[in-house]
Amino acid sequence: MKRFYNFSAGPSMLPESVLAKAADEMLCYETSGQSVMEMSHRSKPFEAIIAGAEALVRQNMAIPDDYHVLFLQGGASLQFHMLPLNFMTINKKADFTLTGTWAQKAAEEAKRLGTANIVGSSKDKKWSYLPEITGADPEADYFHICYNNTIEGTQYHSIPEVGAVPLIGDISSGVLSAPLDVTRFAVLYAGAQKNLGPAGVTLVIIRKDMMERIPAGLPAMLSYKTHVDGGSMYNTPPCYAIYIFKLVQEWIRDMGGAEVIYRQNQEKARLLYDFLDSSSLFFSPVEKSVRSLMNVPFLTTEKDADKAEALNKKFVKESEAAGLVNLAGHRSVGGMRASIYNAMPLEGVQALVAFMKEFEARCA
Amino acid sequence: MKRFYNFSAGPSMLPESVLAKAADEMLCYETSGQSVMEMSHRSKPFEAIIAGAEALVRQNMAIPDDYHVLFLQGGASLQFHMLPLNFMTINKKADFTLTGTWAQKAAEEAKRLGTANIVGSSKDKKWSYLPEITGADPEADYFHICYNNTIEGTQYHSIPEVGAVPLIGDISSGVLSAPLDVTRFAVLYAGAQKNLGPAGVTLVIIRKDMMERIPAGLPAMLSYKTHVDGGSMYNTPPCYAIYIFKLVQEWIRDMGGAEVIYRQNQEKARLLYDFLDSSSLFFSPVEKSVRSLMNVPFLTTEKDADKAEALNKKFVKESEAAGLVNLAGHRSVGGMRASIYNAMPLEGVQALVAFMKEFEARCA
Repeated sequence: MKRFYNFSAGPSMLPESVLAKAADEMLCYETSGQSVMEMSHRSKPFEAIIAGAEALVRQNMAIPDDYHVLFLQGGASLQFHMLPLNFMTINKKADFTLTGTWAQKAAEEAKRLGTANIVGSSKDKKWSYLPEITGADPEADYFHICYNNTIEGTQYHSIPEVGAVPLIGDISSGVLSAPLDVTRFAVLYAGAQKNLGPAGVTLVIIRKDMMERIPAGLPAMLSYKTHVDGGSMYNTPPCYAIYIFKLVQEWIRDMGGAEVIYRQNQEKARLLYDFLDSSSLFFSPVEKSVRSLMNVPFLTTEKDADKAEALNKKFVKESEAAGLVNLAGHRSVGGMRASIYNAMPLEGVQALVAFMKEFEARCA
Repeated sequence: MKRFYNFSAGPSMLPESVLAKAADEMLCYETSGQSVMEMSHRSKPFEAIIAGAEALVRQNMAIPDDYHVLFLQGGASLQFHMLPLNFMTINKKADFTLTGTWAQKAAEEAKRLGTANIVGSSKDKKWSYLPEITGADPEADYFHICYNNTIEGTQYHSIPEVGAVPLIGDISSGVLSAPLDVTRFAVLYAGAQKNLGPAGVTLVIIRKDMMERIPAGLPAMLSYKTHVDGGSMYNTPPCYAIYIFKLVQEWIRDMGGAEVIYRQNQEKARLLYDFLDSSSLFFSPVEKSVRSLMNVPFLTTEKDADKAEALNKKFVKESEAAGLVNLAGHRSVGGMRASIYNAMPLEGVQALVAFMKEFEARCA
């Protein structure tokens, strides 16, 4: 068994200690005589697991008591519908910054239920920067941002000021990569499959006063009220994904929390961006001040499109052979992309940079 | 590590060989250098896993080519909304038999979107039988049944004849417990956490002609068209749950398929029901002809309510100490319930009956 450095954008690397513990407990969790996968969600051991997952994420993210924490299904994509259904309910309009594929999808789904007002877009320059906000509506039911843009490699290093309008943030690929002031937001949500655990569970954090906006009579599964009232167990939750989520939260706590993780992420990102900025073959297409700590797209300086494509393919193939996997770029950006989430060790980034240097020396 | 016999109604027992394989592959799946939890859903190894899961369930359930097979999130509960949203679209009405808690919930969610016509109910006798169908509407957009009633312990051993109206079946707790003629149905759906794998993935089987009924403009995540077009990967699917699903399908195939599993289930159920029918202390509240092979509620003959409750508690406590866990009945039925899904070995039911005999001798 040889484990690779996995640069996948999600699902993505998990801490090896988490996987080892999960393997160890697979046939029998503690003294329960059962796998976590086999446990009734109404049983004492599982109730302790889900309560522990919530307590730990509250601690690691410093989530105040006036916020609900939910574990839902359907990924961020289902949230794109649930958010306007539950919260675009007073003036039937909301503000959006368009900063990439996922921000666009959030706005598109909202458009089915009301007015999605676009108050900034970086589409003109292939999403390579974060736009100024213009024309924000003080009557908007909420203001939506995508905190970190997984495909395009940008990240809000400071949170936009939106006045009294409730701010909603998709933090799927940035959650717990750095300290984040939860109190700046009315609602936060994140698919787990980047920094929180396996695909199949979605963290949703809702400031309690927002609950008043939820209309009665929504389909049960699409109302946040249902899930708050049911403690995320209105129906059977994705128990095993929540269990892994809890193990990941324990790992973050044991590492020293979000501040320590943040410093490690800065070190990893600096190593890679410094190399990209000094390379004669590779470069980052993203404006320096908004580069993501988590997702690092990079291109080659090859101008000829066919030759560039051949070079990308060669890079991906050879890096894979060197145990550096999932480095192909997203088709909408091209080139390569290294996702360096919390669980990617510094050694993985060092190995990547060493490989890139060697490749550059050979192919530039 | 001592594994118990786990009679949970779901999530529930999984084959030990499946868990052992999952544990073994946790840190590195085949030669991928990654856990299945860490794999990009767009990677070759995961594409092979989801394709394998589909091929195996098609084989084990004999699903014809003119049906789509989907792996979705949100459990059967989200299907209660998606089904009328997608299919109650022509005459805006559908027929339902009410046979328990889950059948009722399916009808309640449908009521939000049109007319849910109740064509039979066994509520008058605490859901202990399956009702005759009266007043079925030939213009109904579909006819919905709950094939096996997890809480109440009834099961349709023959599928109702509904003419040309598309039949939709919730088969969550009965799927692959016995051969089922898929072609009798237009749509079938099942939360995985009973006979298919862990909680967090839902199997949905749709006859292709039904797709024409789906309105345009639905929220992306709530349209079956989205998921068919995306091959269950419009967004990140619950990859690990699908992987375990595949391992369970391999186990069913290796056991000899649905027919062999069915004979084992009959043997297990007969053992338990025969004892209940001969016992002086325990009895089944369910009409003989419709008893579930999977979920066996049972009560004691104690007439005094307080004494009965004390006896139930004593039974559950002592059975747990004997390594027979999760035998408490659902609060709506009371008493006890033994769920004996596919993965429960005959030895587990033998141990339960032996314990019940001993308990009866001591306490009757």
